[in-house]
Amino acid sequence: MQENDYSPGLLQYIPFFYVIWSDDLITASELNIVQKAIAQDTALTKGEQDLLFSWLNPESPPSDEEFKKWKHVVSSSKVKLIESETYPLTTFSQKVVCQYHDTCPFNDNLKHIEVNLGIQPNHYNHLFDVEVVHESTSDFYDAKEIDMLLKGKHANVVDDFRTVLKNGIFKWDIHRNKEEFREVVLDQVKFLADKGYGALAYPSEYGGTGNMEGYAYIFENLIYADASLTIKFGVQFGLFGGSIQKLGTKKHHDKYLNDAGNAHLLGCFAMTETGHGSNVRGIKTTATYDKTSDNIIIHTPGRNDNKEYIGNALHSKIASVFAQLIVDGKNQGVHAILVPLRDSDHNVLPGIKVADNGYKLGLNGVDNGKIWFDQVSVPRENLLDKYGKIESDGTYHSDIKNPNKRFFTMLGTLVGGRICVARAGLGGAKMALAIAAKHALKRRQFNDSIKIQEDLLMDYPTHQLRLTPLVASAYVYHVVLDKMMEIYCDDAQPDKRKVETQVAGLKSIITWYANETIQECREACGGKGYLIENRIADLKGDVDIFTTFEGDNTVLLQLAAKGVLSDFKAEFNSAGFTSVLKILGMQLSDKLTTINPVYSNKVDKDHLYNPKFHKHAFDYRTRRLTYTLAMRIRDYIKKGIPSYQAFLKVQTHLLVLGKAYSHELAYNIYCDFTNGITDKKNRLLFEKLGTLHALHELRKDASWYLEQGYFGSNKSKAIRQRVERLSTELRPHIGVLVDGFGIPSHCMTAPIAE
Amino acid sequence: MQENDYSPGLLQYIPFFYVIWSDDLITASELNIVQKAIAQDTALTKGEQDLLFSWLNPESPPSDEEFKKWKHVVSSSKVKLIESETYPLTTFSQKVVCQYHDTCPFNDNLKHIEVNLGIQPNHYNHLFDVEVVHESTSDFYDAKEIDMLLKGKHANVVDDFRTVLKNGIFKWDIHRNKEEFREVVLDQVKFLADKGYGALAYPSEYGGTGNMEGYAYIFENLIYADASLTIKFGVQFGLFGGSIQKLGTKKHHDKYLNDAGNAHLLGCFAMTETGHGSNVRGIKTTATYDKTSDNIIIHTPGRNDNKEYIGNALHSKIASVFAQLIVDGKNQGVHAILVPLRDSDHNVLPGIKVADNGYKLGLNGVDNGKIWFDQVSVPRENLLDKYGKIESDGTYHSDIKNPNKRFFTMLGTLVGGRICVARAGLGGAKMALAIAAKHALKRRQFNDSIKIQEDLLMDYPTHQLRLTPLVASAYVYHVVLDKMMEIYCDDAQPDKRKVETQVAGLKSIITWYANETIQECREACGGKGYLIENRIADLKGDVDIFTTFEGDNTVLLQLAAKGVLSDFKAEFNSAGFTSVLKILGMQLSDKLTTINPVYSNKVDKDHLYNPKFHKHAFDYRTRRLTYTLAMRIRDYIKKGIPSYQAFLKVQTHLLVLGKAYSHELAYNIYCDFTNGITDKKNRLLFEKLGTLHALHELRKDASWYLEQGYFGSNKSKAIRQRVERLSTELRPHIGVLVDGFGIPSHCMTAPIAE
Repeated sequence: MQENDYSPGLLQYIPFFYVIWSDDLITASELNIVQKAIAQDTALTKGEQDLLFSWLNPESPPSDEEFKKWKHVVSSSKVKLIESETYPLTTFSQKVVCQYHDTCPFNDNLKHIEVNLGIQPNHYNHLFDVEVVHESTSDFYDAKEIDMLLKGKHANVVDDFRTVLKNGIFKWDIHRNKEEFREVVLDQVKFLADKGYGALAYPSEYGGTGNMEGYAYIFENLIYADASLTIKFGVQFGLFGGSIQKLGTKKHHDKYLNDAGNAHLLGCFAMTETGHGSNVRGIKTTATYDKTSDNIIIHTPGRNDNKEYIGNALHSKIASVFAQLIVDGKNQGVHAILVPLRDSDHNVLPGIKVADNGYKLGLNGVDNGKIWFDQVSVPRENLLDKYGKIESDGTYHSDIKNPNKRFFTMLGTLVGGRICVARAGLGGAKMALAIAAKHALKRRQFNDSIKIQEDLLMDYPTHQLRLTPLVASAYVYHVVLDKMMEIYCDDAQPDKRKVETQVAGLKSIITWYANETIQECREACGGKGYLIENRIADLKGDVDIFTTFEGDNTVLLQLAAKGVLSDFKAEFNSAGFTSVLKILGMQLSDKLTTINPVYSNKVDKDHLYNPKFHKHAFDYRTRRLTYTLAMRIRDYIKKGIPSYQAFLKVQTHLLVLGKAYSHELAYNIYCDFTNGITDKKNRLLFEKLGTLHALHELRKDASWYLEQGYFGSNKSKAIRQRVERLSTELRPHIGVLVDGFGIPSHCMTAPIAE
Repeated sequence: MQENDYSPGLLQYIPFFYVIWSDDLITASELNIVQKAIAQDTALTKGEQDLLFSWLNPESPPSDEEFKKWKHVVSSSKVKLIESETYPLTTFSQKVVCQYHDTCPFNDNLKHIEVNLGIQPNHYNHLFDVEVVHESTSDFYDAKEIDMLLKGKHANVVDDFRTVLKNGIFKWDIHRNKEEFREVVLDQVKFLADKGYGALAYPSEYGGTGNMEGYAYIFENLIYADASLTIKFGVQFGLFGGSIQKLGTKKHHDKYLNDAGNAHLLGCFAMTETGHGSNVRGIKTTATYDKTSDNIIIHTPGRNDNKEYIGNALHSKIASVFAQLIVDGKNQGVHAILVPLRDSDHNVLPGIKVADNGYKLGLNGVDNGKIWFDQVSVPRENLLDKYGKIESDGTYHSDIKNPNKRFFTMLGTLVGGRICVARAGLGGAKMALAIAAKHALKRRQFNDSIKIQEDLLMDYPTHQLRLTPLVASAYVYHVVLDKMMEIYCDDAQPDKRKVETQVAGLKSIITWYANETIQECREACGGKGYLIENRIADLKGDVDIFTTFEGDNTVLLQLAAKGVLSDFKAEFNSAGFTSVLKILGMQLSDKLTTINPVYSNKVDKDHLYNPKFHKHAFDYRTRRLTYTLAMRIRDYIKKGIPSYQAFLKVQTHLLVLGKAYSHELAYNIYCDFTNGITDKKNRLLFEKLGTLHALHELRKDASWYLEQGYFGSNKSKAIRQRVERLSTELRPHIGVLVDGFGIPSHCMTAPIAE
């Protein structure tokens, strides 16, 4: 027993007070927690309570001398700080008391403070000059439980698939030669087809299980093996097979769908043209019906009208070709037609030319090519004619009379693909985060001169701040994409057009997020992250193009914004704009909340961590941007500026709205999910991740909120501090959080993540 | 002659009024310009003047009917709008008057409005339903003149070098196999050495011209050929040769420098270790002096203590090895020692092991490797002993007594390399911008239904906004890096440590800028940007690592910030912190400007475009951040928290300060440069680029300025609008601006940029 001035009652609180004051992080609501604990601590004398209360006064904080005395008492105790205790600071305090006094019972009031202030070992493990028994990650949460929550009802499909990925055929390797790489990937695709995964989303009559939602999970997990495999798989089964399934009718299904699903018939999806990437409606390839021969003639009219960047182009026997369908001299708009490309010996058929796109920044295991058609004849029945057909008498017929609507209905088949692309991008981000976090939990760099070991990268605040919010967002986006696929697959959902605009926006923000995350992880791993063997480099090259294909993000965001503007009803290139404005006016008129100064300067923890606040902020932004955008457009239109030009003038505003809407949508979906988690411990964790994600997103757009007066200065600063604090609070769990992604260990081949 | 209601005097102003009002962009100071022109137009009647004035009242703008009437009159004239006229809108107005009236003299008052409002054809070419004679870029400025301004006094060296790059040996090609690629690059390096470029920065006695500044220009231009070549060149002549030049003495120069410069002796710079990337002071390799044999023994003690990522490792005969020098049992700190690696047959010498680092995300033409030493003996004279030597009696001697200072003096040799790396990154950004801009000046996508041609990508506001500020920043950073190299090379500059911290910060912000720019360009080129043949993909992979090597950006920013804090004098790991705070207190006490509401809401053009405003804003941010940071650290120290821990706690604040300081420094250097441009036309252009850069940077950190009350809401919004407006104003010149980078046409091999 050593000597000190403090009674046991006081002494047990001293480590807590030291931690609380050393960071100046405590706010009014947090003071309450400490005050309450002291008030409830009946073992304390009145004098002890009063002294403790006096040390809690923000107006008159403890003196520097008092502070140094606290530190001295704690450090002199020579008690080891053991981070792996369930309540490390309470246990530590108790042991300090034991060093100086005879009794030292465990005090539940201290535990109450520790839990409710969210004090984590990394907040204080460096503060006292005592030995710290470090651990890189806590086991307070269970990665398996988290993974189960993410897999939800698809656990069986996912787990089976992850086991399949153990097969040697998926062993990751470096491939520099594209021809050799493509053969490897083709074999992998065929292997998966044999196992039934190609047809997964097709109806059971055609070898499938009709499980499109499960297919999306497969898609994400595939990128843990290789991104080229993921994309090639998606082209064959999702785009090519999917076009037959969704745009074709029974005759096409019977003839092709089985062979598409088992990969006996390799095909491609020939939509994009060199001259027309984003503007699909403007593609130039023609499909002219010739009544005499009862054939459709596919033709590439000009130099830049060839099909471009078509995945699977070099291995395919057949293509779904999108072309302007001309029947009896009249253009009926874009339709898809099945066009054989090669014979059984894999020779290109007459009139067809295919050229390799060559090497790309990534995805070199995918055989992208250009295709030209020179007056190629195919039978009339090759038209995928669910939404528009040529009758036997040579007349065109469609149940959808409006050509615009018909076009968008056909394009709606791309929506599933967009979800999957975002899903794969998310998988890439998760993998990069897992590698970067595992590296940062082993790698040490720099130290205090008195320490023997250098510090773990993960213990640097900058490192916590650069990785943790991205981990939180990965959780949010996982839940969002899962839900969007569920909605997309739900035939009871009437408004497919709405889903389409929502997915357009989400695909944009999530693929951009994925790229930023992978880049952050690359840099966070330093030179090691640059080595191909550590996987992040390939992810960077591969995932990059996700921002462009399946719809360029900039174009998609405008689509999302127009969806918001038109309340998903009107078309902005037509004359219906005035009626849209009327609807908008009704929706928005005086709904815009007036923000009062009290609200815009509310900085207490309860408020800042409350999803109601986040939702309100996201909602406010979308509505405000919609309103100002609509007013700007109306002013232009009133001045006689054509709507196309008016939209050009507000293009940057459209992008901002598209993003704002997508973030709002994502967070709302995520909150619905967390509300449904029955287990309290995990629900609180998921809520904390959601809070970090939301505050981090709001923080990124703080300038806008400040401009609007929605945030006061103090609130904006408080949000920044909360993002940093949440990032350090989650530090002990970062290992479990990336393990919770459920990336199979046999796919985690990066040496730095071992 | 057709009919209309307006007199010739009124009519000539109508196209101007239509343009001005259709965008609502006009501010008070701009109204003045128009009012003044009307007042000075003596050809107008009093009635005409009054009517024109009445149409300028923002309180009561012209009615929508009036507005439509204007449009009708202009459109009905059927006058063609010819964008290539020197004053297109004035000339257009004049022709409209000619259509309706007999006389139509050119009116200088209109020209005055056109020039002073910065009205550009792309502001109005879509507004009237008239035929527009488009041109993709204006020739108002001359790319050659701009290039000359950028080359400055180095024009001869640069022009000669660009001609050398025409040689077939530099023909760009795709290389997938690293061994083959490395041979190609090695041959290129030898070719340049033969031409004298390797030795360029060495003294004339050793085959050079002592032109380090010219060397930096060569370095930037090299990346137009290939980035692997750039880096390999830098390793051989800058790092390896440079270490002999800067750390060695005459005996080393005489023995090695000629052969280093002509590449007869290939060498590497072995500093980084697997376990120690950023923390050079903590490297583990030992160099122990053995008095008996008069040798130094080089040794790799542990598993992760090997040299890592060493460029040129597979081709080198010798290495500059950084190791802890131990003399007579005492560690004298890190020194460099020349260690032969291979014999004349290129066999690795006994005790040395070299392993290939394998494939990387980029730079696969550089042979990076790991090196282990097992008790390797080299003669005492192999110590590069400019700053610390072993005497013949076996005692250690250095003129720099303080080991810390000695270490930093030796590391100072890296500063030139850091400037060159930033320079190469900037070259990569310029090239990507040139490719993306040229593509956007040819590529069309989408259109108004009434137009035959689709719109050029470059005519989309989103595209202007994504590329133009980045082009402006390229100009700023070019000037900055040129100046920093001049300062670094100037022996009259006493404070080398200051240059070092400045370069540390600038290297960080510029290499990050380079990566963001290349990424933006990749996305702006869509799928075409993803093809290796279009060059951006390789730039992306190659330039990525520039954020990590020659000093990790995150670490360098902290160095820069500590430099600011310590006024470049104190060392923060030592006890001298109190004195630093004293200095800081004196510097900052009440210097922090009080921002008054008038200033924070000043939104007129003259103010926003004034470099004084930009400089004040940059300066204010640095000072404020320095002050708050210092106060935070002081508070921690007062509480007894060790300074290492205190710095950990403010790490994110340090990064923010490091960036702020670097941006301030960059802009100040750039303004000094533009002030020195004698030709007015080009000076105004450079000033406009500087303004766009400054406003774009301030805009990025608007949330901070809003929080501080330095920006009011309206000012923040006005800055955003000005960034958009400047981007469209520069639209006609974007082609000339990227040509002004002077990238040789023989290096611009990207098919999309042809």
